[in-house]
Amino acid sequence: MIYFDNSATTKPCDEVVRVINEDLTGDLWGNPGSLHKLGMKSSKAYDDALADCAKVLNCSAQELIFTSCGTESANTAIQGFFKANPRLGKTVISTRTEHKCTLETLAQLEKQGYEVRYVDVLRDGKPDLDKLRSMIDDTVALLCFTHVNNESGSVLPLEQIISLKKELCPSAAVYLDCVQSLGKLPIDLKYMGVDMASFSGHKIHGIKGVGLLYIKKGIRVSPMILGGGQQDGMRSGTQSLPLAASMAVAMTEADKERKAAYERVSEINAYLREQLSARGATINSPEDGLPFVLNVAFRNFQSETMLHCLEIYDIFISTVSACSSKSKKTSYVLEAMGIDRSVSSNSVRLSFSRYNTMEEAQAFVKAIDEIYELYEVKVR
Amino acid sequence: MIYFDNSATTKPCDEVVRVINEDLTGDLWGNPGSLHKLGMKSSKAYDDALADCAKVLNCSAQELIFTSCGTESANTAIQGFFKANPRLGKTVISTRTEHKCTLETLAQLEKQGYEVRYVDVLRDGKPDLDKLRSMIDDTVALLCFTHVNNESGSVLPLEQIISLKKELCPSAAVYLDCVQSLGKLPIDLKYMGVDMASFSGHKIHGIKGVGLLYIKKGIRVSPMILGGGQQDGMRSGTQSLPLAASMAVAMTEADKERKAAYERVSEINAYLREQLSARGATINSPEDGLPFVLNVAFRNFQSETMLHCLEIYDIFISTVSACSSKSKKTSYVLEAMGIDRSVSSNSVRLSFSRYNTMEEAQAFVKAIDEIYELYEVKVR
Repeated sequence: MIYFDNSATTKPCDEVVRVINEDLTGDLWGNPGSLHKLGMKSSKAYDDALADCAKVLNCSAQELIFTSCGTESANTAIQGFFKANPRLGKTVISTRTEHKCTLETLAQLEKQGYEVRYVDVLRDGKPDLDKLRSMIDDTVALLCFTHVNNESGSVLPLEQIISLKKELCPSAAVYLDCVQSLGKLPIDLKYMGVDMASFSGHKIHGIKGVGLLYIKKGIRVSPMILGGGQQDGMRSGTQSLPLAASMAVAMTEADKERKAAYERVSEINAYLREQLSARGATINSPEDGLPFVLNVAFRNFQSETMLHCLEIYDIFISTVSACSSKSKKTSYVLEAMGIDRSVSSNSVRLSFSRYNTMEEAQAFVKAIDEIYELYEVKVR
Repeated sequence: MIYFDNSATTKPCDEVVRVINEDLTGDLWGNPGSLHKLGMKSSKAYDDALADCAKVLNCSAQELIFTSCGTESANTAIQGFFKANPRLGKTVISTRTEHKCTLETLAQLEKQGYEVRYVDVLRDGKPDLDKLRSMIDDTVALLCFTHVNNESGSVLPLEQIISLKKELCPSAAVYLDCVQSLGKLPIDLKYMGVDMASFSGHKIHGIKGVGLLYIKKGIRVSPMILGGGQQDGMRSGTQSLPLAASMAVAMTEADKERKAAYERVSEINAYLREQLSARGATINSPEDGLPFVLNVAFRNFQSETMLHCLEIYDIFISTVSACSSKSKKTSYVLEAMGIDRSVSSNSVRLSFSRYNTMEEAQAFVKAIDEIYELYEVKVR
């Protein structure tokens, strides 16, 4: 099996499976809210997990909240920010290429009377900074961007955006979706200038069902899920140690391997760009995109056809984001990048992880050659 | 170790650990949203898990949503009901003895202009039905109750409440917190007359981090977590097969053992009631309460003192609900039941599961005797 769909989800790594098992079968299954030593032990391990996550992200443990997924993190951050700050401006800046969890949350805000200004992205998937400059004024309360786009791999020019923000709307907050950049790009929350950020476990060889939300000290956010007041009241519901610990382990492992993985995946990406271009494929991902994502259009093959052809070879890729794959035919991300529908309807996303190898990339190219030979329907 | 704190959380059972491992390490880790066969396989298994849960609850799989916990289920149900039905009445009926996730959500509704009418509970922890009758009128849109109270074990007179509702506010909806009754009382959603219900995995030997929300067909509820539109748009975020499957297994196992466990735990409960009463303890749980919960006040021992004394014997119990244990000294549930502070400040909760034995109950009584002998501070 060749799995090139790591932006959709990843296989849980051994270290993650191990820690989940330890926490399920050992003496760590107590309720962290319990006063007895079984609870204390679980509570201590939970705090340790949080501290490990904070260490990877270079923030304080008090600035992190465990959630059930990146989507919950995004919802909590954006909705909760406006709920906690009703007297701030009612304008948000974002793009049309955000993940659905951001776009849908913003759409809800619009229904409530907020103004969302969507800045165009350029062919490289990055926001048009000139337009952005013209759109920012002091009514802006929040900027919502994505560190690495999940379909194109475009990397946000974060420093420039933070500069613009500081210049034009210094009191606004910045929310950053880091689901695809975690474990792949350096994330140093102390120096990045972002106020809220979301993370997910299952994109970095963790388990599905856990995420993190970063809220910078001093930024006020109202909780979305109310109840027993766990996690300092920011996210009620019994804390899950197996999920928290698995997140910490997944992050620590990914961080340890990050630089080596980046190099290896860069080579894979460069090789595939070259080989596939030579076969007439169009590379949609920008040159300076994150190497872990390669969006490519194969001539004469509709996205889904190519996906299923590759499946025959036990090669797994995706058409668009897994979250949207069942509802939309073509990618709204590629559309926003100005990519022609004739190209985007043939586009697929290859996405890599630290476990992928050059041998897999070579086998992939071989499979593509066979697929063209066997299945191509020549069109004029 | 004697674990009598099963209403706080339970130890994951072998079947749950096994299925989580299978789903983490086999070929079921795909994203259920992916179009390829790895995703399909995961999606199929996810649907199977949902169907298994629906079978236990006697409802349709389309009426169930996987959530991250009972607290999320409660928040989604109550907030989402009013969001989806803005033209219904703005009155809610509930009690002061609900779990914090309900009480905090209702408090938020009150801030938004809703009227919440809290019906008193009697000494047995059940709502005063005469008062309830006088409080219901046709402005009532929602009734929120708990099937089994987590601190007292009081069982809601559901049939009588449903009758009152049908007579006095037939168009109102009923939300039922079934977190403590799941696996212990028969739950037949087809015939219970409730419109929404919440469930949690970790109270029935599942993993922390998964719950269920039941929404009867035809009842409109707005989702709380927005995004990729998973679970028919009712709960976005990548679905977690290990968590879903573990819930299904935990429910199926609990259901299989339910009747036998009920009998065994009834014997344990009766034995402890008798033995502890004979030693001068006050039984706070009603005679007809669920046998799985036994709230009892030990004379001359403050709740927390007794908890820690028992800890020496590796016996684990709780003072109040684990969700509130770190913030409050005495139980708001016992207070609402009219139990004197002098009694409630000495009260602890023993809570049992199908894995507890009569031998453990006997050892517990023996430990109590020793504790009185060694640690009792005689007061006048």
